[in-house]
Amino acid sequence: MPRFKLTIEYHGGPFVGWQRQDEGRSVQGALEAALGKLGEADPVVTGAGRTDAGVHAYAQVAHLDTARAFEGFRLAEALNAHLRPHPVAVLSAEPVHEAFHARFDAIERRYIYRIIERRAPLALEAGLAWQMRYPLDVEAMNQAAQSLLGRHDFTTFRSTQCQAQSPVKTLDHLHVSRMGSEIQIEVRARSFLHNQVRSFVGTLERVGAGRWSISRVKEALYARNRAACGPVAPAHGLYLAQVLYPDAEETG
Amino acid sequence: MPRFKLTIEYHGGPFVGWQRQDEGRSVQGALEAALGKLGEADPVVTGAGRTDAGVHAYAQVAHLDTARAFEGFRLAEALNAHLRPHPVAVLSAEPVHEAFHARFDAIERRYIYRIIERRAPLALEAGLAWQMRYPLDVEAMNQAAQSLLGRHDFTTFRSTQCQAQSPVKTLDHLHVSRMGSEIQIEVRARSFLHNQVRSFVGTLERVGAGRWSISRVKEALYARNRAACGPVAPAHGLYLAQVLYPDAEETG
Repeated sequence: MPRFKLTIEYHGGPFVGWQRQDEGRSVQGALEAALGKLGEADPVVTGAGRTDAGVHAYAQVAHLDTARAFEGFRLAEALNAHLRPHPVAVLSAEPVHEAFHARFDAIERRYIYRIIERRAPLALEAGLAWQMRYPLDVEAMNQAAQSLLGRHDFTTFRSTQCQAQSPVKTLDHLHVSRMGSEIQIEVRARSFLHNQVRSFVGTLERVGAGRWSISRVKEALYARNRAACGPVAPAHGLYLAQVLYPDAEETG
Repeated sequence: MPRFKLTIEYHGGPFVGWQRQDEGRSVQGALEAALGKLGEADPVVTGAGRTDAGVHAYAQVAHLDTARAFEGFRLAEALNAHLRPHPVAVLSAEPVHEAFHARFDAIERRYIYRIIERRAPLALEAGLAWQMRYPLDVEAMNQAAQSLLGRHDFTTFRSTQCQAQSPVKTLDHLHVSRMGSEIQIEVRARSFLHNQVRSFVGTLERVGAGRWSISRVKEALYARNRAACGPVAPAHGLYLAQVLYPDAEETG
């Protein structure tokens, strides 16, 4: 069966998250329904990252198999036609090796968290960024962020519902930068624990607001205790921005 | 009576346009209703530009008078509180001279038109840009745009419903640029005819698509005939981006 790698953009607002669930509309479910409408009898779409309810994607990656032969471009067009009016867009569908696995083969996931700092509500970007009504010290946030880099037991920054076998992960990149009133937090790792990025952001926000010292972030990490974490940042500022694979796996 | 200059962001989607009308919800009407809720008996908000239905604003400017004394910051906060849940945000309210007039005193209006060039639907920016499913030649569009600069009879690029006394206007700036898949058209003039910017954009799109020669835009201008215009571009790509005033008028 031909296997395809999809790159997918979505607005997380109306969804219960990426993953198919008994109740509510999921991104995975919307894609599988669209694939079913193309005549595929057993439509299964497997994503690289199981984003939570409300989390957006610039470029989620997923794989699927089709019984019929498709040209990648036509498959993307056909899926998009059946996805309407859901805010899910297949940016590309490329044929890949039949052993390609969107989730297990990924070597890096990149997330972007958007904060917009202003008093007035967001008329144009409502639901697309976390609005902050007081100023944040981005230098302090970025300095605190550096203490989280590397291989650690991230129990502090892990949801109590996290199903990962180990709380030990390697954080490759965590950078906080400002462009005018917008603050972006970029995070990269091979894989993440449940709520890890939003736990980082909510904790760093406390530093930016001057409520936490920079050193308290490192102390929170070393505590290996969920209670030491700052508040979890809201889902609607978070975007799955990129998923990387070894070059050899990309071509079918 | 104290007069205030407001700077306002809005999403044009749910509105019949800036201007109060007998039927439907207008941005002006939403602002006047919010001002009324502050206890002002005769709430009137006068805008610099009467944007059409669906047109957005990064920074519309308006003025209003209040019977009560307000601190500008508090007035903006109070208006925003009463504007919810409409996608209208008062970014600032500044005290100005009592003769300040948002519409008549403006010396320049700046519009931005956003085009996103891609096949897949816009999941994250639906309603915020004009999606183009084929490539546009931005160099050709920008070259054609230059023939529109200066003082001209713009009858070709004017809605048949335009109420301006004269079709003669001076276009100061019209620039087409690309950043990746996004094309932005920036337009500046003291004032515009009805539908002028969207008529420019729709005409330049024909050039970018290779359907019109570059020289045809100048011929269309010289025709002074509405029938010579390209199709009018949709409202949801257009943003009123800035309104400028002489420095002396800004302080009350």
